[in-house]
Amino acid sequence: MIDSGKVLEKLREKKPLVHHITNWVTIYDCANIVRAIGALPVMAHAIEESSEMQGMANALVLNIGTLTPELVDSMVAAAKKANESQHPVVLDAVGVGATSLRTEKAIEILDSARIDIVKGNQSEIAKLSGADVFTRGVEAVKVEENVAKLAKKLARERTNTVVVTGKEDVVASFTGKNYLVKNGHPLMGEFVGSGCLAASLLGCFAAVEVDHAKASAAALSCFGIAAELAAQKANTPAAFKQQLFDGIYNLKPADVKKMEKVEELK
Amino acid sequence: MIDSGKVLEKLREKKPLVHHITNWVTIYDCANIVRAIGALPVMAHAIEESSEMQGMANALVLNIGTLTPELVDSMVAAAKKANESQHPVVLDAVGVGATSLRTEKAIEILDSARIDIVKGNQSEIAKLSGADVFTRGVEAVKVEENVAKLAKKLARERTNTVVVTGKEDVVASFTGKNYLVKNGHPLMGEFVGSGCLAASLLGCFAAVEVDHAKASAAALSCFGIAAELAAQKANTPAAFKQQLFDGIYNLKPADVKKMEKVEELK
Amino acid sequence: MIDSGKVLEKLREKKPLVHHITNWVTIYDCANIVRAIGALPVMAHAIEESSEMQGMANALVLNIGTLTPELVDSMVAAAKKANESQHPVVLDAVGVGATSLRTEKAIEILDSARIDIVKGNQSEIAKLSGADVFTRGVEAVKVEENVAKLAKKLARERTNTVVVTGKEDVVASFTGKNYLVKNGHPLMGEFVGSGCLAASLLGCFAAVEVDHAKASAAALSCFGIAAELAAQKANTPAAFKQQLFDGIYNLKPADVKKMEKVEELK
Repeated sequence: MIDSGKVLEKLREKKPLVHHITNWVTIYDCANIVRAIGALPVMAHAIEESSEMQGMANALVLNIGTLTPELVDSMVAAAKKANESQHPVVLDAVGVGATSLRTEKAIEILDSARIDIVKGNQSEIAKLSGADVFTRGVEAVKVEENVAKLAKKLARERTNTVVVTGKEDVVASFTGKNYLVKNGHPLMGEFVGSGCLAASLLGCFAAVEVDHAKASAAALSCFGIAAELAAQKANTPAAFKQQLFDGIYNLKPADVKKMEKVEELK
Repeated sequence: MIDSGKVLEKLREKKPLVHHITNWVTIYDCANIVRAIGALPVMAHAIEESSEMQGMANALVLNIGTLTPELVDSMVAAAKKANESQHPVVLDAVGVGATSLRTEKAIEILDSARIDIVKGNQSEIAKLSGADVFTRGVEAVKVEENVAKLAKKLARERTNTVVVTGKEDVVASFTGKNYLVKNGHPLMGEFVGSGCLAASLLGCFAAVEVDHAKASAAALSCFGIAAELAAQKANTPAAFKQQLFDGIYNLKPADVKKMEKVEELK
Repeated sequence: MIDSGKVLEKLREKKPLVHHITNWVTIYDCANIVRAIGALPVMAHAIEESSEMQGMANALVLNIGTLTPELVDSMVAAAKKANESQHPVVLDAVGVGATSLRTEKAIEILDSARIDIVKGNQSEIAKLSGADVFTRGVEAVKVEENVAKLAKKLARERTNTVVVTGKEDVVASFTGKNYLVKNGHPLMGEFVGSGCLAASLLGCFAAVEVDHAKASAAALSCFGIAAELAAQKANTPAAFKQQLFDGIYNLKPADVKKMEKVEELK
């Protein structure tokens, strides 16, 4: 029990400004989920302003779903600024392992600035932790090795928090505090972008909770609970997605308390 | 009473083609609201074609929400072409005051071409009119000075129309005709992009009504009325947004006549 | 009777990965319709990875709706890779005839790589087949000449399949097999992007059916049938669009069999 609802309450009270440099596919939904949860989004990818915009934000979310080398330069500039201000930086490692550009650029970002939370699916995180895996497009490929072990290894190496999304989400921290988040619903995988939405929520929660492992578990738990509630109202992807956004907007800390399924992981 | 419904009828009859060079966050919704109201959208941002595409359009909407210097060059090229054809140009000054890039580029656009309608929230317009304000991300910050006064000052300086969106919308014109639009609903602020949608509608209405102050008030009034009607059917942001788009599509001039709340402003 | 439902079943079984280099307006919906029909989308437009990403995909969809010269270079690189692997390439010729950039670049793409399926509205296809027409923005303009004749001419010239969307869709093949698809609903034209969605579905179906004329007719027929079913549940564009995506997701081969309206065209 990490009391995700408490973190949610703090988020709604503080209304953090969450800067994104993200992909062009889900950019609208990333902005909109930030608004729905009760924070404020801003997207400013030009190298001429990404750092300055970061200066007034409370967190940064990077997503390499449709990266170019120029966009990555802008990401690094914003990340360095966030580092200076000690504001959390989230990296969604979309498609790492699929192309050499993605793998190289994700590592370049990790090497150029402090990334507080690295998030990916099983194959993306496995690749970043040095396992010999392959990503098909931006879809997760089942990895043989225990993914929690790989996530812990990466978190230790990078002295940060690593999030692996999947049927159950793994949160691994260099502090040794690890969580398994069991909230969620299969319909989240039936529309495009739920992984991106998760990353945006990680940024919102980390903006108000300095224990990033706890913040991550809280974000994923709230997202999963909203999905469980949405699935009670709709059973097709498009209708479900609408309910999910409205569920995030209406999510009550009391419901979160009742429905939270977060376990500590050894 | 400006009879917004009449302008709406003219718009649906003429079906103007409204060219956009806009941001990557709300670009789909900008295009879709234009179609919903009964006009036709086109988006062509490449510098190699922005002017040529403008040549066949009836209005231009510029939005600097995710600007780059290159995109601004393309905006200026299209605006000059629209000026030549005496077609109206709308500028949505998203985030002016937040970064120096935004402030400088908005002024560069205003100085390089005739912008018929400048639109922003309170802090954006205050900044453009020379007041000493600060924008947090792309969110409005309450300004101390009377915003209508600042809008009128800017409209006189630029010999154009200035729109300030907020709980009530201000329309200020260099002609001395000013309006206060009281239609609208708080749910418009609970999803991302209603400001951008307003700018797109300004372009649609200005394409068919040469009195740009009247066109602006009519656009904002119709948008606000559709929102009031949508709020009767949905009370959460995602469901409301769907009702809003369908409400715009189905908006009846007779309802507009009954519900219009536009006052002349001294 | 081409039994579109059979092709749909094969698609869902094989779950092809469909790479897109597309426009920034409808990019989300393109990805989401691919997921809804049962395939997997990936979008990777950077020249540094477009070819490598294509290497793991099963089809490529190109859409020049918001083209730049750099994006077209990336399209050509991906198309050449798809050619090498004998994976189908679809080109949605959005706005050809509206600006010289669009017309020239569409022809450059056609001349630089094998494009298996070219898709456009009447004026776009007419322009590509050498007729003297004009496109207003990205909207179709009625062409005087018989569009099926022009499509057949273009298909012969390019030794490929040509699709003309409209009230009824024309599929013309260099093999001499041509189809008229009569499924569909007027509400498809009342929101932005149904043409783009059709192109994405062409890519999904062509990925699993080597007879591209048959694949195209099957894709358009399934899309049209889902629209007919959606129109039974919603009669406004935004509500209809949601039903359409969920209808695609739930589309049953048995319903397709019953409702398919595909005729052979001489």
